[in-house]
Amino acid sequence: MSMTIKDIATELGGVIEGDDTVEISALAALQDAAAGDISFLSNPRYSPAVGSTNASAVIVNSDWQGEFAGTIIRVENADAAFSKVASLIIPPVAKPVAGIHPSAVIEDAELGEDVSIGPNVVIERGVKIGRGTVVGAGCYIGADTTVGVDGLIYPNVSIRERVTIGDRVIIQLGAVVGSDGFGYTQEGLKWVKIPQVGTVEIGDDVEIGANTTIDRARFGKTVIENGVKLDNQVQVAHNVHIGENAAIVAFVALAGSCSIGANVQMAGHSGAAGHVHVGDYSVLMPYTAPTKDVPEKSVVSGFPARPFAQYQKSMAASTKLPKLMKRVSALERELEKLKG
Amino acid sequence: MSMTIKDIATELGGVIEGDDTVEISALAALQDAAAGDISFLSNPRYSPAVGSTNASAVIVNSDWQGEFAGTIIRVENADAAFSKVASLIIPPVAKPVAGIHPSAVIEDAELGEDVSIGPNVVIERGVKIGRGTVVGAGCYIGADTTVGVDGLIYPNVSIRERVTIGDRVIIQLGAVVGSDGFGYTQEGLKWVKIPQVGTVEIGDDVEIGANTTIDRARFGKTVIENGVKLDNQVQVAHNVHIGENAAIVAFVALAGSCSIGANVQMAGHSGAAGHVHVGDYSVLMPYTAPTKDVPEKSVVSGFPARPFAQYQKSMAASTKLPKLMKRVSALERELEKLKG
Amino acid sequence: MSMTIKDIATELGGVIEGDDTVEISALAALQDAAAGDISFLSNPRYSPAVGSTNASAVIVNSDWQGEFAGTIIRVENADAAFSKVASLIIPPVAKPVAGIHPSAVIEDAELGEDVSIGPNVVIERGVKIGRGTVVGAGCYIGADTTVGVDGLIYPNVSIRERVTIGDRVIIQLGAVVGSDGFGYTQEGLKWVKIPQVGTVEIGDDVEIGANTTIDRARFGKTVIENGVKLDNQVQVAHNVHIGENAAIVAFVALAGSCSIGANVQMAGHSGAAGHVHVGDYSVLMPYTAPTKDVPEKSVVSGFPARPFAQYQKSMAASTKLPKLMKRVSALERELEKLKG
Repeated sequence: MSMTIKDIATELGGVIEGDDTVEISALAALQDAAAGDISFLSNPRYSPAVGSTNASAVIVNSDWQGEFAGTIIRVENADAAFSKVASLIIPPVAKPVAGIHPSAVIEDAELGEDVSIGPNVVIERGVKIGRGTVVGAGCYIGADTTVGVDGLIYPNVSIRERVTIGDRVIIQLGAVVGSDGFGYTQEGLKWVKIPQVGTVEIGDDVEIGANTTIDRARFGKTVIENGVKLDNQVQVAHNVHIGENAAIVAFVALAGSCSIGANVQMAGHSGAAGHVHVGDYSVLMPYTAPTKDVPEKSVVSGFPARPFAQYQKSMAASTKLPKLMKRVSALERELEKLKG
Repeated sequence: MSMTIKDIATELGGVIEGDDTVEISALAALQDAAAGDISFLSNPRYSPAVGSTNASAVIVNSDWQGEFAGTIIRVENADAAFSKVASLIIPPVAKPVAGIHPSAVIEDAELGEDVSIGPNVVIERGVKIGRGTVVGAGCYIGADTTVGVDGLIYPNVSIRERVTIGDRVIIQLGAVVGSDGFGYTQEGLKWVKIPQVGTVEIGDDVEIGANTTIDRARFGKTVIENGVKLDNQVQVAHNVHIGENAAIVAFVALAGSCSIGANVQMAGHSGAAGHVHVGDYSVLMPYTAPTKDVPEKSVVSGFPARPFAQYQKSMAASTKLPKLMKRVSALERELEKLKG
Repeated sequence: MSMTIKDIATELGGVIEGDDTVEISALAALQDAAAGDISFLSNPRYSPAVGSTNASAVIVNSDWQGEFAGTIIRVENADAAFSKVASLIIPPVAKPVAGIHPSAVIEDAELGEDVSIGPNVVIERGVKIGRGTVVGAGCYIGADTTVGVDGLIYPNVSIRERVTIGDRVIIQLGAVVGSDGFGYTQEGLKWVKIPQVGTVEIGDDVEIGANTTIDRARFGKTVIENGVKLDNQVQVAHNVHIGENAAIVAFVALAGSCSIGANVQMAGHSGAAGHVHVGDYSVLMPYTAPTKDVPEKSVVSGFPARPFAQYQKSMAASTKLPKLMKRVSALERELEKLKG
């Protein structure tokens, strides 16, 4: 699709500076853009890139100051405005038509209005799926699982039995929900499996990334509260509890029975040991796995986890350590001389 | 399902203290339990939680001392007893009926008695599957692969050709067995693929977690011995050898041709470099990747890996390093003064 | 299959020392080999293993010096020669026959000559697949996606809409291409999804490992240049750019909009923060995630990333830190005495 700059600015409620007749047919980052493209500047750090971009138009925040040979559209929030333009120029993928593909295998399910079940989907008995939810090709949904309304389950997702999923939940491709927790007791040197008879409860407006795995509880529930966002390839173990609006990035490992507070942010490759609580609003840096509770609003780093500011100072100092050792040796020699 | 405390205690061979007539219908952790629930105490650290739980009954070890207003059931192993109660109260998912779902595509396979092949399963020629094994919906099994008896392969698992899998093996959803090893030679700057013509051999009583990947050998075999337990999202590269009863947690990366001893435990985000041997009974802490052989019964941490006790001391000391640098500078100034 | 040593040597253009009539039927590493096996020595470090191997024949580099009771085949590149023998002795899996399996669901696609579409594959409208490409069982290919010639897409791979994939690309089982990027803005404490309307562009001769995930761009493209090799369980976020021939190992996390130079090598559990550039030919060690640009030809380690040589010195020194602290305390006491 294409639109004139004038039409775009009208949709955004923005102020135009320059030629508003150019047809825009694509979006691009400042450094990648060509004539006919629209781009945007949100982070002032990249302001110089506006001067050298080949984009025909650039969306900027209303207070931006700088030079640009093309057309400027001033708006209140350039970042959000650009997302809006994206959905205008690139029409979203058509929502699959409602109905059940003839190749789907459905044992006995209660499907709401306008539900779409894709090809080769397998749904066991007792499943309930709410109005408007889309289940992509090749998905598996186990017995007695419930999915809310307006959900979007992409292809090849696997959900086991007795799981509860809220409204407007998005699950990316290849994700797994409800697999057995990793729980064993030892008899001598052998591991004996502990039955994992609990389940998983996922709130509303949750997003689960591609190939992410969420284990069912040993008993009781693994709980993911409303508004939580999990990136691709996150691992959530049995009996974990994740509070509202937590945002958790790739390769985070949440060990059994840990609890993550509301609005926590966990960077890639971080984690939490079993039974640990991470307080609300805390931030975990990469490669950080607390083995003790983390107070709320902390920013922690390292293994064992410590305050990030302290971690940074230690790391900076450690680069001077080899030299420090030489200085201490020199001091010892000097002192011997003085004593002698 | 529900059972009286009396009936539960009889099943466990436990000793009752208190009212044994209450009906129990659910299991829960001490802090989550409500009236009508049963809970347990295994780790003495959580003993105070018994006093404040709302559970109607708590299973404890026979030597436990403490106060509880509800009913106590004393047993020898509270942890194991609780798992038994779980399987009594929460009936396990019915095993799929034996037989081949009409939507399965089977080229030419030898299936034992009571095998269950789910919807949309694809099985290539020459596959053998032992008595009582369940293959879940959407699984793929490549040519000439063999699976033992009483296995449980959950939906959407992919197993490539010529793999051998033992008896009573459980494979969680989305796991991959037999993918090509990551092996290339360089011609100039280009990577040229080395054919990965080996295979994978998996012993008895192994469990493989959801979305875990196990590569086939370049030649010969990638070997996983009896009783090994792999968590979700573990990566096992080509020609790796994992000894009996090793337990390996999420995001462990085992590089090509490393060998992991029997009864080794590897924490999340640990790993082993190519060709490294980790000795029997050793424990790897998180973020630990030895680049040299690890002696048996070691506990190691960090990159490069070192004894955990030493790692902890270094980390503790490193937080005092910025202050130490100031002390050394002060010493240098003082010494200058003394010399002057 | 089996071949005489003479026939093998002829195929390799190698020089035989010893009996050339033995029939070889299997390949094995030096320490695993039995009579009738062929093995090889490439890394001189393992040279002693030749003396004790039970292999009937060993392929060595032409300048190798050592003793062996069996037959030696001297070649210029023992490693490459061994791969060639592997493909002679172990016949590769037969390429699936061309054609469309009757269980596949194809909306409307343009398929080149000799394309093979496996059972239960789902292909949406507007897809183009080039000559000779194989699409394995259970794969999903979204609308308007293009795949080049002679590709090999293993079973249960998921590729979303509007993705472009070059020629001779191999995608291992369970991989995901084109999932939504992990992009949100905050409204109060809630995360609001940013539409991910971009796509993914994959060059020629790329290999993508099992259960690896590659997100589509927010807008524009996530780009993987020619010859890139991704191991299993790699995570590539939205708008990432990976240069030619980069080799990236398991559990590497490439955050949004980072760019990885040509010929870069990234070890397991490494990564790059958002918008960071890693220069050509650089090497990232395990557990390394640069938050600033990395100059080309660097070898870096740690978080924050620093030159590997410096990282090693700091780590070695840190093990002596507890003792150093005692030495400094002793100096302070001595100095006090001197002053007194």
